[in-house]
Amino acid sequence: MIDLHLIGIGTGNPDHLTAEAVRVMNEADLILLPRKGSAKSDLVDLRRTICAQVLHRPVRIIEFDMPVRDASVPYMQAVDEWHDAIAAAWRERIATHLPNGGSLALLVWGDPSLYDSSLRISDRLKAAGVETTVHVVPGITSIHALTAAHAIPLNPLAGSVTITTGRMLRKHGWPAGADTVVVMLDSGCAFEAIESAGIEIWWGAYLGMPQQALERGTLTQAAPGIAARRADLRARHGWIMDVYLMRKELADGSR
Amino acid sequence: MIDLHLIGIGTGNPDHLTAEAVRVMNEADLILLPRKGSAKSDLVDLRRTICAQVLHRPVRIIEFDMPVRDASVPYMQAVDEWHDAIAAAWRERIATHLPNGGSLALLVWGDPSLYDSSLRISDRLKAAGVETTVHVVPGITSIHALTAAHAIPLNPLAGSVTITTGRMLRKHGWPAGADTVVVMLDSGCAFEAIESAGIEIWWGAYLGMPQQALERGTLTQAAPGIAARRADLRARHGWIMDVYLMRKELADGSR
Repeated sequence: MIDLHLIGIGTGNPDHLTAEAVRVMNEADLILLPRKGSAKSDLVDLRRTICAQVLHRPVRIIEFDMPVRDASVPYMQAVDEWHDAIAAAWRERIATHLPNGGSLALLVWGDPSLYDSSLRISDRLKAAGVETTVHVVPGITSIHALTAAHAIPLNPLAGSVTITTGRMLRKHGWPAGADTVVVMLDSGCAFEAIESAGIEIWWGAYLGMPQQALERGTLTQAAPGIAARRADLRARHGWIMDVYLMRKELADGSR
Repeated sequence: MIDLHLIGIGTGNPDHLTAEAVRVMNEADLILLPRKGSAKSDLVDLRRTICAQVLHRPVRIIEFDMPVRDASVPYMQAVDEWHDAIAAAWRERIATHLPNGGSLALLVWGDPSLYDSSLRISDRLKAAGVETTVHVVPGITSIHALTAAHAIPLNPLAGSVTITTGRMLRKHGWPAGADTVVVMLDSGCAFEAIESAGIEIWWGAYLGMPQQALERGTLTQAAPGIAARRADLRARHGWIMDVYLMRKELADGSR
């Protein structure tokens, strides 16, 4: 029997950890840390740093090489196969290090519910016959790290918010009826693909980390500068994670 | 000069506090706690409990009576006047307790960016001539407390999410093009106002608190039970805060 704890750790600032996250990490029998290749070595280093900072008892930590998504097959198929491969990697470590069951913790960037695969991979673990109870510790998402860094509201007053992906924005354009749109998982400046008139943008990368970068302005004026800065930062750090909020000017001129 | 820190404290579980929230609370010169009338006395008690738990130096704590929204005038006007009244209440305490400026902390339910007025009230403080720099500490929202409690993803795989209010759902129905809808600020079961076929619901109240209540099921089957349980809990505790996620069955039968 495995108690699988998916722990939201926030967006890279160890200070984003909640008291609950720290407690559950310390109660675990095993913490699995994914290694994601040299380009993102900052990220596994960050997880190591977090473990070193908050663990006050000797919890076993095992690293494993994160399988890579196959870019040569269609996106949804690639994601499906990738999740299978990650589930197999988890299973192997569980068989080796928790043969009699126990408490396994995984540190999830942001919050485990938002554009993260761990919950879906947990389902595969169960389907493969590993008796698993899943527990989730909520975490600070990059959305709230973004709105905090800019000190702005997420929703317009009494209004709604659409959270979507770069892929969806490119494919479908500005979501029907939306005033405020948050774009995540954008592999590169999907905001360039929409009509920019009357839209304001608040952009952030590496939110909560020392290299945090912020930009804001009308989409028309700010887009070229964001695209250039993003390319520069990506080249310099070897990786980038960014997120942005866009708001249409409302009919009454307010935002 | 006032450094105003809006600190997200999560949804009622003191364990939702981040390390950053605890640090900023301890560095404050003054913490203002709103008193919200006897029905919600649990909530000011909770803020007092949090202060008692995490403060390790003698930070001054002042309570003030939260102005009440006027239910007799139109909604947007009532909200506008209410925000003015709250800004005036803050100004008065600042003049009395921080006459030479300093660091003021406010403990905000959930996250300060999401359906909270503090950022907009801060703007009124500035407009009234109080020199203010606003800092935001992100917090765990009831959305992520809900998905964590149910151990479910917020977004469908590679899909989008709409966050809206009970008022908007009643007025406009199911948001155009949305697969997943999160409803907040619902004063009473707006899910009853929409066509329920093909929709699944995950509901939660008092998330993260000892009295946490959860329900899930198809909307058709679960709605009457949720409405009854909500009325019962509200009568028993004198107040309720709930949130729910609804998902349309996708074309391929997945969710």
